[in-house]
Amino acid sequence: MPVLVMKFGGTSVATLDRIRRAAKKVGVEVAKGYDVIVIVSAMSGKTNELVGWVNETSKFYDAREYDAVVSSGENVTAGLMALTLQEMDVPARSWQGWQVPLKTNSAHSQARIEEIPTDNINAKFAEGMKVAVVAGFQGVSPEGRITTLGRGGSDTTAVAFAAAFGAERCDIYTDVDGVYTTDPRVSNKARKLDKIAFEEMLELASLGAKVLQTRSVELAMRFGVRLRVVSSFEEQSDDAGTLVCAEEDIMENRPVSGIAFSREEAKMTLISVADRPGIAAAIFGPLAEGGINVDMIIQNIAEEGRTDMTFSCPVDQVARAEKALNDAKARGEINFHDLVADTDVAKVSAVGIGMRSQSGVAARMFKTLSDEGINIKVIATSEIKISVLIDRKYMELAVQALHDAFELDKV
Amino acid sequence: MPVLVMKFGGTSVATLDRIRRAAKKVGVEVAKGYDVIVIVSAMSGKTNELVGWVNETSKFYDAREYDAVVSSGENVTAGLMALTLQEMDVPARSWQGWQVPLKTNSAHSQARIEEIPTDNINAKFAEGMKVAVVAGFQGVSPEGRITTLGRGGSDTTAVAFAAAFGAERCDIYTDVDGVYTTDPRVSNKARKLDKIAFEEMLELASLGAKVLQTRSVELAMRFGVRLRVVSSFEEQSDDAGTLVCAEEDIMENRPVSGIAFSREEAKMTLISVADRPGIAAAIFGPLAEGGINVDMIIQNIAEEGRTDMTFSCPVDQVARAEKALNDAKARGEINFHDLVADTDVAKVSAVGIGMRSQSGVAARMFKTLSDEGINIKVIATSEIKISVLIDRKYMELAVQALHDAFELDKV
Repeated sequence: MPVLVMKFGGTSVATLDRIRRAAKKVGVEVAKGYDVIVIVSAMSGKTNELVGWVNETSKFYDAREYDAVVSSGENVTAGLMALTLQEMDVPARSWQGWQVPLKTNSAHSQARIEEIPTDNINAKFAEGMKVAVVAGFQGVSPEGRITTLGRGGSDTTAVAFAAAFGAERCDIYTDVDGVYTTDPRVSNKARKLDKIAFEEMLELASLGAKVLQTRSVELAMRFGVRLRVVSSFEEQSDDAGTLVCAEEDIMENRPVSGIAFSREEAKMTLISVADRPGIAAAIFGPLAEGGINVDMIIQNIAEEGRTDMTFSCPVDQVARAEKALNDAKARGEINFHDLVADTDVAKVSAVGIGMRSQSGVAARMFKTLSDEGINIKVIATSEIKISVLIDRKYMELAVQALHDAFELDKV
Repeated sequence: MPVLVMKFGGTSVATLDRIRRAAKKVGVEVAKGYDVIVIVSAMSGKTNELVGWVNETSKFYDAREYDAVVSSGENVTAGLMALTLQEMDVPARSWQGWQVPLKTNSAHSQARIEEIPTDNINAKFAEGMKVAVVAGFQGVSPEGRITTLGRGGSDTTAVAFAAAFGAERCDIYTDVDGVYTTDPRVSNKARKLDKIAFEEMLELASLGAKVLQTRSVELAMRFGVRLRVVSSFEEQSDDAGTLVCAEEDIMENRPVSGIAFSREEAKMTLISVADRPGIAAAIFGPLAEGGINVDMIIQNIAEEGRTDMTFSCPVDQVARAEKALNDAKARGEINFHDLVADTDVAKVSAVGIGMRSQSGVAARMFKTLSDEGINIKVIATSEIKISVLIDRKYMELAVQALHDAFELDKV
């Protein structure tokens, strides 16, 4: 039998009624002849409640106990989903992570999947079971302790199961009906994409379009899992939602597929750094140790032997970044005249695999922003992405103008 | 190191504050030099919520999924308790049932403990861990699925751990401060007992004094575990609460230790049953199959070849009992003239290991009731118990009169 993986997020299993609605969608796929692996999240709000209790109990908590506590929400949903399916006469049973066993490393609360043996579940499929309901987000370490995969880890669980079982497709049921050319709350011309390439999805996800956990997309790309984002709350159809797939599977060849943005950015500039070999490592080492997520990095030669170094990071990490850099200066590891933080910036990015083969994308982007009177503060590019930092107040305007300029509203 | 088992029920871990209070009590015992095994229930209300969801999802549910769902509450408390102890600098970690592993049979939702290997936990004690926090009420079946031990199963978990680890004592922390001579709500002269024999506790528990799960007392008796019932909400002391122990450990030798009662009883009489060998089996077989909890049984020879058969059962099982007996009559398995149900009776019992060696207890009981003008409808006795059925309206009066007659208010 072909295998299908279906993942239901927290809002899709938030109540017994919604679990029933999700189970009906599973029943439809079983009727088509699939053996289905269902991955469930905790009922929405439950994981936050558990995380809250852990934080209130212990400020610097033992991540092993954190995992033991916060993984319990998924176990509840898995059992309830199995019961609901049985009630609909669909042969089903639940699996907790350790029962599969979904083997991970020991990096508690951020564990990586190492192996998913398929024999237990396949033996049950062979006996006539139609649906294996698996608690998402959790696994078991080599020491036999419960691990969790980090926020959004149920997406990664789903993709890993799809890879392990050679599933025909991995459907991620969520509260949005697909991936859009940009956030519809910012541009009312935003259009749902039928298909998007893995690489584009990765850029969009890491740029703040929080539809899928980044690692789940990486994993899907590595193992060639066809990943579909689809709404739990709309009519079921094989064509619904957005298919995240390999570049070859996408016919249309636009230069830009989407406009992503990130509102809470900060731009930090180290002015007149004494330049020498290894200076970048001396600067970014302490920042990494301080847990600062440095994003864009630009270096300008200011004068002989000295340089300006600019980088961006999330706004709420500015204080920590300043401390890390000033401490490094105090230790004599780096030398700079001044450290200037601009906390009123946002990042806007054009993303598209088409820009690999089509020139002039950057030029069109810069001209569009210029025509709107928007000053570009920092530019960074990759093969399939052009990002700029601009004043935050122009963010919506920039997104809308770029969406128009690249004609993303047109099919 | 000597091992102590401490069990905290749902009300004792109902909030993070209460978990902290319980953890402090654990810390006190660690400071005395004990290695402590803490057994925790789910936060009060959590298990009921989970059971409610299962019942709402599925009327005739798969008990394996029921167990997977309802066991999750204890996992949360175990992790939070371990974190709280760590926060107090007490080395602790949590264990879920399958991690110990606490091995049970496959009787889901009513599983029996078969084995508790001690090596995992003892290895951690040897490494310097001071407290093993174990999720109560749950285990793992030979098939690797989660089982639960039935309501109150955390008491049984605690006693089983005490037996397996040769614990010095098993302290059951709860919301009452011990076992009383009778229910203080019925007699304000009720007195807390310092000690009570296992056998007495068994009679009291099965008679409706719901301090400890019956199976936990049976297990404690079988393995000679010193079991103490103590309040979570009072000063900590080695002498607090009630010690449930072997008869030999009890010095005082009263004839009666306590007056138990059960309000919701019914008395059923089969009138003029055709008597023949095997007639009792023919009557009580169908009742057992119908799930009726038959308690007292009395047979009177009424006339030549015919007999009256009387038994008691819980009031809410009367309709089922009538159906079972009338069905058996229709099938020709038994023959009786009439079936009379008296649903306005209560059971009152005097319990005491002392009555084994002291005569006149029954006589004093009957005279006391007679002096109060209370008519006895059925009498049943065991070695350490005398039970009577009386009109329900006299129940409180009977309990108070017997409590006085056996001077249970006096130390």
